[in-house]
Amino acid sequence: MFISKNLAVNEKGHLTIGGIDTLDLAKKYGTPLYVMDEDLIRENCEKFKKSIDDYYEKNGLVCYASKAFSCKEIYRIMKDEGLGVDVVSLGEMYTAVSAGFASEKIYLHGNNKTIEELKFAVEHKIGRIVVDNLNELELLNCIAKDMRSKVDVLIRVKPGIDAHTHDFIRTGQIDSKFGFAIETGEALSAAKLAVELDNINLVGAHCHIGSQILDVDPFVLAADVMIKFISDVKDATGIEMCELNLGGGFGIKYVDKDDPVDYEEYMKAVSIMIQKKCDQYNLNRPFIVIEPGRSLIAPTGITLYTVGARKEIPNIRTYVSVDGGMTDNPRYALYKSEYDAIVASKASEEKNEIVTIAGKCCESGDLIGENMLLQHAETGDILAVCATGAYNYSMASNYNRNLKPAVVMIKDGKSRVIVNRETLEDLVKNDI
Amino acid sequence: MFISKNLAVNEKGHLTIGGIDTLDLAKKYGTPLYVMDEDLIRENCEKFKKSIDDYYEKNGLVCYASKAFSCKEIYRIMKDEGLGVDVVSLGEMYTAVSAGFASEKIYLHGNNKTIEELKFAVEHKIGRIVVDNLNELELLNCIAKDMRSKVDVLIRVKPGIDAHTHDFIRTGQIDSKFGFAIETGEALSAAKLAVELDNINLVGAHCHIGSQILDVDPFVLAADVMIKFISDVKDATGIEMCELNLGGGFGIKYVDKDDPVDYEEYMKAVSIMIQKKCDQYNLNRPFIVIEPGRSLIAPTGITLYTVGARKEIPNIRTYVSVDGGMTDNPRYALYKSEYDAIVASKASEEKNEIVTIAGKCCESGDLIGENMLLQHAETGDILAVCATGAYNYSMASNYNRNLKPAVVMIKDGKSRVIVNRETLEDLVKNDI
Repeated sequence: MFISKNLAVNEKGHLTIGGIDTLDLAKKYGTPLYVMDEDLIRENCEKFKKSIDDYYEKNGLVCYASKAFSCKEIYRIMKDEGLGVDVVSLGEMYTAVSAGFASEKIYLHGNNKTIEELKFAVEHKIGRIVVDNLNELELLNCIAKDMRSKVDVLIRVKPGIDAHTHDFIRTGQIDSKFGFAIETGEALSAAKLAVELDNINLVGAHCHIGSQILDVDPFVLAADVMIKFISDVKDATGIEMCELNLGGGFGIKYVDKDDPVDYEEYMKAVSIMIQKKCDQYNLNRPFIVIEPGRSLIAPTGITLYTVGARKEIPNIRTYVSVDGGMTDNPRYALYKSEYDAIVASKASEEKNEIVTIAGKCCESGDLIGENMLLQHAETGDILAVCATGAYNYSMASNYNRNLKPAVVMIKDGKSRVIVNRETLEDLVKNDI
Repeated sequence: MFISKNLAVNEKGHLTIGGIDTLDLAKKYGTPLYVMDEDLIRENCEKFKKSIDDYYEKNGLVCYASKAFSCKEIYRIMKDEGLGVDVVSLGEMYTAVSAGFASEKIYLHGNNKTIEELKFAVEHKIGRIVVDNLNELELLNCIAKDMRSKVDVLIRVKPGIDAHTHDFIRTGQIDSKFGFAIETGEALSAAKLAVELDNINLVGAHCHIGSQILDVDPFVLAADVMIKFISDVKDATGIEMCELNLGGGFGIKYVDKDDPVDYEEYMKAVSIMIQKKCDQYNLNRPFIVIEPGRSLIAPTGITLYTVGARKEIPNIRTYVSVDGGMTDNPRYALYKSEYDAIVASKASEEKNEIVTIAGKCCESGDLIGENMLLQHAETGDILAVCATGAYNYSMASNYNRNLKPAVVMIKDGKSRVIVNRETLEDLVKNDI
């Protein structure tokens, strides 16, 4: 009945998440409010881990791609689940390390890492640095030399695969700001240089072929290309890279028409291809890393808003305005991303209206979605927007000087705040 | 030679802003860095004020639309210049009031003001509340009654004018989340209700027809429609509204092809139309309010970045990556907005390359612009992106847990920080 399995309706006809009445959550913590479900996060972690256990003989690591949602508590949960994490900035590294996450299980990504970021990574012995370009490779070697360190790196490769997603979120093809292309020979050159540099230890290769991918085939193809690359590097340098990081991009169900693949299907299919290619090239099966972000987190979260103005424009459309908007969820403004929404107090009722959900920002493009099927929403109602656990809080802004909402986590039928709501004092803290 | 008049080249061939070498600013304050020019901000304020003085017999007020850039110092500057300000949220109201801005010269806007915002506005005697919808009108009347207050309101009207700008930023036509449509009769109904309510004092009408408008005609047409509306309200209620707020939307030069109108041309043309229509309907000329935001601020600012990776993809494109991106300037990701950019140390050299300027976020859509003509940018160069004074800092996010840059203000050849750079501690401040 609902997009995410942790949503249900209670005896009052109210929407629940993780068994808790969303109206009670709105009343207790205020709106707008992000709510996430730790039980489902952990269940998702287990599924990804199990897929490696079952189909890849436990020879791998699931890394949470924390750009999807980064705060101290999520790193603690991932630590407890035995996952690694991938980070993409000084801020994410700092947050992970501050939360007590073991640095050796952190992977640092980024197309343009700053000197400060690389220094922090070497100093804190971040487990893997995924090198994006030649400039970075040489810079990292210098920094490691200065710090009398030798750093384990993967090189980021463009496998030349386009996973047929939205223009903005495809990253595997050659026209990308990320990584070294295989087809032009630059990936091989980078590997050769990495092998030559004294303070670099080349342990593997990384690729990421896109986001919100609802198909197994692109991942299988990526595995094919990457094992061939490992073989080419071995032929050219004598070094057999022992780690293959296939990135993330696993799609989720945002709206009814989305039909995501079971997580285990990825590893099942990829595993077969890896074995086949390793046999062909006479290679050991590499340690595998996968980096789910959205798929671990997005379906576990919802955003609760209070409905304010309702504006019916005859023969045109009905606007239902909420007390948040593009400041807490910019994904419609950025990508026209679709979401499912539910009037929390009428969750058992049929959806019988087509409306546009508008935010409160002074900007016409500030919409949560257009032409959304919804129960009749009136002023004062609580509205839940589903599957907002990823790329909502993490992308939030203070546009219009709106305050970032709190994040509440649900576990075992109890709720707790994991990120405090911003205050007016926070807003002017850095103003002189 | 440059997009904005406050940019020049010094004897070293370096780009200067307000007479200061941008390389010195980058060195002193770090990058990414927003730099704004107070001298030019004040010059722009004077121009708008002068247009009302010269063409409207000083019978009006220029209000700075602070959503373009809101921080304490900008309200102090606007106060010193004798401007009013328009605010769109509790956060902006709070910042303005905290900075000592006189509440009677504050206009509160918004399509979905919260109860908290309306209470704050009534309690702090905010000068004008621009009422957007019937729910708000009745709510405000109740709040004012509870506080034994009578509040001065304008009603926000959709004049039915489409200013032919980008889809996302047009706001005057009937299909808008903002305001009451004239053509359906709801604007007149709202005015009638406002007149009837005991704690509401209807003083005027407001409209806003779009953003980045490079033409005078839509404003003249809006003035025509709005005076007619004032007349209709007078006929229906006996009340002659004495204030006309024509909003903002005045375009600026982002790139060479943009050809903005001189500020005074707006008032010159609008004034003639108002006089004509007032004579026709036998009305007094209303007090006029205009609300420039972008046009006061955007051309006065630049963003300085340090160039990191440079990636040439043969026959496809060259990526020049910088140490900021969609986190400090999301306008390309949101609207494909175009900007001009300059390699600061090569500002006197010819631009001889077409490049894509990419940010450092782990997202393919994180670009500052595509196919931009630029001097040859190398790793370590300082890059200036022009006309970023509006809707950059104000729209900044912490996506990827990147830190918001500092804002430096230039005046009389001297620089000072007006917003401190965010710290790692700021980032985790609300994390439990």
